Amino acid sequence: MHVIIPKNLLAEGISLLERVIPSRSSNPLLTYLGLSAGPGALLLFGSNGEVDLEVRLPAQVSGEGRYLVPSQPFFSLVRSLPGEAVELSLPPGGEPLGGQGTPQLSLSSGRFATRLSAAPTEGYPDLLFPNPEGGEGDEVFPDRVLLPVEELLKVLAHVRYAASNEEYRAIFRGVQLEFSERGLRAVASDGYRLALFDLERPQPFARKAVVPARSVDEMVRVLRSAGPGEAGLALGPGVLALEVRQGGEGALRMAVRLMEGEFPDYERVIPREFPSRVALEVEPFREALRRVSVLADRQNHRVDLLLDEGRALLSAEGDYGRGQEEVPVGLEGAPMGLAYNARYLLEALGPLTGSAELLLSGPKSPSLIRPLGGGGYQAVVVPLRV
Amino acid sequence: MHVIIPKNLLAEGISLLERVIPSRSSNPLLTYLGLSAGPGALLLFGSNGEVDLEVRLPAQVSGEGRYLVPSQPFFSLVRSLPGEAVELSLPPGGEPLGGQGTPQLSLSSGRFATRLSAAPTEGYPDLLFPNPEGGEGDEVFPDRVLLPVEELLKVLAHVRYAASNEEYRAIFRGVQLEFSERGLRAVASDGYRLALFDLERPQPFARKAVVPARSVDEMVRVLRSAGPGEAGLALGPGVLALEVRQGGEGALRMAVRLMEGEFPDYERVIPREFPSRVALEVEPFREALRRVSVLADRQNHRVDLLLDEGRALLSAEGDYGRGQEEVPVGLEGAPMGLAYNARYLLEALGPLTGSAELLLSGPKSPSLIRPLGGGGYQAVVVPLRV
Repeated sequence: MHVIIPKNLLAEGISLLERVIPSRSSNPLLTYLGLSAGPGALLLFGSNGEVDLEVRLPAQVSGEGRYLVPSQPFFSLVRSLPGEAVELSLPPGGEPLGGQGTPQLSLSSGRFATRLSAAPTEGYPDLLFPNPEGGEGDEVFPDRVLLPVEELLKVLAHVRYAASNEEYRAIFRGVQLEFSERGLRAVASDGYRLALFDLERPQPFARKAVVPARSVDEMVRVLRSAGPGEAGLALGPGVLALEVRQGGEGALRMAVRLMEGEFPDYERVIPREFPSRVALEVEPFREALRRVSVLADRQNHRVDLLLDEGRALLSAEGDYGRGQEEVPVGLEGAPMGLAYNARYLLEALGPLTGSAELLLSGPKSPSLIRPLGGGGYQAVVVPLRV
Repeated sequence: MHVIIPKNLLAEGISLLERVIPSRSSNPLLTYLGLSAGPGALLLFGSNGEVDLEVRLPAQVSGEGRYLVPSQPFFSLVRSLPGEAVELSLPPGGEPLGGQGTPQLSLSSGRFATRLSAAPTEGYPDLLFPNPEGGEGDEVFPDRVLLPVEELLKVLAHVRYAASNEEYRAIFRGVQLEFSERGLRAVASDGYRLALFDLERPQPFARKAVVPARSVDEMVRVLRSAGPGEAGLALGPGVLALEVRQGGEGALRMAVRLMEGEFPDYERVIPREFPSRVALEVEPFREALRRVSVLADRQNHRVDLLLDEGRALLSAEGDYGRGQEEVPVGLEGAPMGLAYNARYLLEALGPLTGSAELLLSGPKSPSLIRPLGGGGYQAVVVPLRV
């Protein structure tokens, strides 16, 4: 194989694979970067065992080949190459000239030239991508849907924060996606708070799938890099595949292993009746909350809210002293005093800008946060016991 | 005491103290920030036991007082305060109203208000600053000199990298300053390479002092923040004090503990005769060296240089493969092949820009790097045995 490709294009592709490919692994092959050259394109691929990623880059290719190269030096080199273009070549069949030793990938750019020890792809785990054509022989991915990249991003990015980092109750370390004819919902919770986002766009199949939160991070990163366009989702047994086309011939395919199980019934913790409603401006409220929370007890992060007509008085007291700040809000309903874990409240406000409402079901029962005027996002935060 | 001070000024002062004040210490008092209010100024002070720092900020002050406050919440709060000005107050004598409990510092800005638990300064270690007037009763700092900030910065910043990080031969974890009538020299070495900088400016006293490399980092940081002006240095027993005046009433004082001992005789390792001289452009040479070194053996970081008329061929070979690049250079003298630890060579080139020369005393004896045309900086790097 012989490949000529613009350096910047290669560097962009690599920046996506860099976070997926581990620098150490119990399976050393996973520390390698895969290169696959075929008509008109160079494919880069990698996997950490949880997430498989393949990036297709348009390139001038003659011949074909599929190899693994050590990812660390390849990444470092590509970023710093002196030329505009990069030339990669490997003798046909991957055998070194003379037929002995490991195959050598030649990489050159400007005055710089290198030969990297390559490895054949034997033994590398199969990547779990569906057949891109969706044709015969690919019944393992029966459930497929196309969504605007922007919307899928919104769904994932709004709820990710609420997933758990604890080993305890493993299912909460994932984000549940619920496909149904009503739409696509994402839910995350750590058992103490919950975030959900409803995308009102009927889905062609009904299924639930729990994606590990860390894999959601990679999906978000890939979607952000893709820019406007359409994203294809395909569900197979134990795997969710994501495909994004980029400008020209470029395209990304990602496959993430799903978690086993399903969230416990979370609907019952979402309050439905609210004796008091507070309208607030997210930015100033969040800033005040952040300042006051500096003084909060370092164990429970408790911040008190005294909600009265036209104002919220935030206060906190801990080992360092006491702090307070007043923020203008609009209150409908009875004045109320209650307390929250400041971190949970800050994180629940995290995806929001502009105006929001805090809906209170009582000083000891769950509160709901959502954008004023709706918009799919809802966060449930449970007040601390006073 | 009652202080009103612009928030930005206070935040700038704090950014300097933030790195010095430790978040944990065997002496918990060192985790506190000191505040001292007097006529027209608020002094912030802190220490980590190695470096003492005092920042003087012009402020509107009535009364006076000297207290310690917990630094972590103070730092977090000041950065995020909502108002333009900050108001600090503490009842006279530091006693809380009513005379019970710990003194409370009130801090307010905009709608935000807090009371922080303060502590009296009893038990806080003495800061080792000389009397700023240098008058009677301050004979402990007999040796004083004023230097342009820019020049002192240059002296320190050129050699710092060469200091050792190893416990072994503790003296090499410092930077030696040599004051003499010839000028001010800074030297650093880890026993394998050496960097020195000569400032040609006669000094009013002759002394050597070894400053811990980490304290040099803090001096550099403070000098950078100070901008143009003059820096005063004063040497006392076991301590070097630095004073920098800033615009207006602002000023910084820093005291660093010196290390005991003196560098072994390093002059004899500096080569004086060079059968070959290589003129090179620092930027392209460094970039090529960086690329080639990606392929170097990960133990010894070996890069080979083949110096010939008009060109240097850099090459390296390790587990990943082999890389090479040619760089145009000017060679005077005999062609030569030799090898270096790439990291040492890169670091020796680090303080340089523009043109430099690499002076070769032989393939197995020390090489010298310095700016073409001189400029005070010299780096000695020993070639690897071929």
